[in-house]
Amino acid sequence: MDPRPIGIFDSGMGGLTVLHECLITLPHEDYVYLGDAARLPYGPRPLDEIRRFAVEIAGYLERQGVKLVVAACNSATAAALPDLQRILTVPVLGVLAPEAHAAVLATRNRRIGLLATDATVASGRYAELVHALDAGAEVVSVACPRLVPLIEGDDPFGEETAAAVRAYATPLKEAGVDTVILGCTHYPLIRPILQRVFGRGVTLVFSAEETAREVAETLARKGIENEHGREGRCTFLTTGDPETFREMGRRFLQLPIARVERVAIAALEAAAA
Amino acid sequence: MDPRPIGIFDSGMGGLTVLHECLITLPHEDYVYLGDAARLPYGPRPLDEIRRFAVEIAGYLERQGVKLVVAACNSATAAALPDLQRILTVPVLGVLAPEAHAAVLATRNRRIGLLATDATVASGRYAELVHALDAGAEVVSVACPRLVPLIEGDDPFGEETAAAVRAYATPLKEAGVDTVILGCTHYPLIRPILQRVFGRGVTLVFSAEETAREVAETLARKGIENEHGREGRCTFLTTGDPETFREMGRRFLQLPIARVERVAIAALEAAAA
Repeated sequence: MDPRPIGIFDSGMGGLTVLHECLITLPHEDYVYLGDAARLPYGPRPLDEIRRFAVEIAGYLERQGVKLVVAACNSATAAALPDLQRILTVPVLGVLAPEAHAAVLATRNRRIGLLATDATVASGRYAELVHALDAGAEVVSVACPRLVPLIEGDDPFGEETAAAVRAYATPLKEAGVDTVILGCTHYPLIRPILQRVFGRGVTLVFSAEETAREVAETLARKGIENEHGREGRCTFLTTGDPETFREMGRRFLQLPIARVERVAIAALEAAAA
Repeated sequence: MDPRPIGIFDSGMGGLTVLHECLITLPHEDYVYLGDAARLPYGPRPLDEIRRFAVEIAGYLERQGVKLVVAACNSATAAALPDLQRILTVPVLGVLAPEAHAAVLATRNRRIGLLATDATVASGRYAELVHALDAGAEVVSVACPRLVPLIEGDDPFGEETAAAVRAYATPLKEAGVDTVILGCTHYPLIRPILQRVFGRGVTLVFSAEETAREVAETLARKGIENEHGREGRCTFLTTGDPETFREMGRRFLQLPIARVERVAIAALEAAAA
């Protein structure tokens, strides 16, 4: 029995899709969620800078006493997962490997599309992970720099978002992919739009549910689960505006968030020092 | 080739879940959606009154020249489907039968829960449909009069909604059901809350995707599909406030709705006369 919370972080609200699936699978665990809204978006930043941010945040969460960290941000996972795993003493899980696995299982024609941030596409990690599982599968990648700012913006479900999704989807449709990896935890937040643009014939692969399963298995195998039957608590932290966080968490994941605490960037930097 | 639109109606926004799935399956069709917000909720009304409303609306849609009508409202389907099918000359589909079928397929312990409106529970139609497919399956029904008003209210994702869902779920959890029919097209609009309350072990059954499949098959078999490859149009009608409709359609289904027309109740009554 281990009462320590699970730490989950993202550049913004996208990681809430992972928290939501964890709450379905592991309602008896406590969680600390940190969204680095002040430095959002991560996607257009150099991999080195994303790595530095991820190391700071994961270190901060470890000092808060978490028993496991989920890098619920594809850009951070692509840039920093091995470093985080070397630096931290608690287990660190990312969101790329579960999704690559699901995509290889789902595809019938072995043509897989990837929608992700510039950083994630530039890292080449998805293609590596897919090819490690099926060397003959083809990965067609499209960087979508406009999506995260639109999703975290004032009008996430407007015509501009729909038009951006249609534009990013076009090369994947032309390439005849039958499976698309949503390679950013923000993208499931506009899942209805993505589903309508891709239609019934294309399987959309999300990391959140697979990642929750991996969290559950890690806790069980390492014997660090909390007591079953209890109701877990969530603590929400942001480097941005707490009220915006509350409002967006409610809008996107229907989470009745009572309280959000602000964390200063300086506090994160101190954790990495 | 048949360019006429498909008509879909509901007491409010719930039927948009069916429209959304139709747009994924049949993006080349045109749609006319009518939400009877002025008389929402249907659930607490006598079956006779719901039947009258459904006959009015379906008749109105037929006069608008639709080629098929979907009663995308479980209360209306439970109260009026046979009448609608007798009165209209175009095919009429409901949302109960596809869901009962999906629930019988999904259950492992043959204990099926039902969350629905008073009217739908009182009609007893779900139990009949389930028992027609598996006479040995058990159906545990819970009427949820608070959910539709909460979902169409000012704070659909607040603590009050979560508390109501927990209360309605309790008898189903105590009965040990492994499958729950969401017997109202509004309920998928709070799917994340329902998923968290029921947890990973319970399968939630929604009618929308099954219904869309049935629409597609009906059009194909009767040879009344529209031309493939074109992009369909949606027309939105409401008996309530058009601006509220726009805002809610965007919030719940991420539909960038450009224009909503108001229909007077008198116009509906005239259609049934």
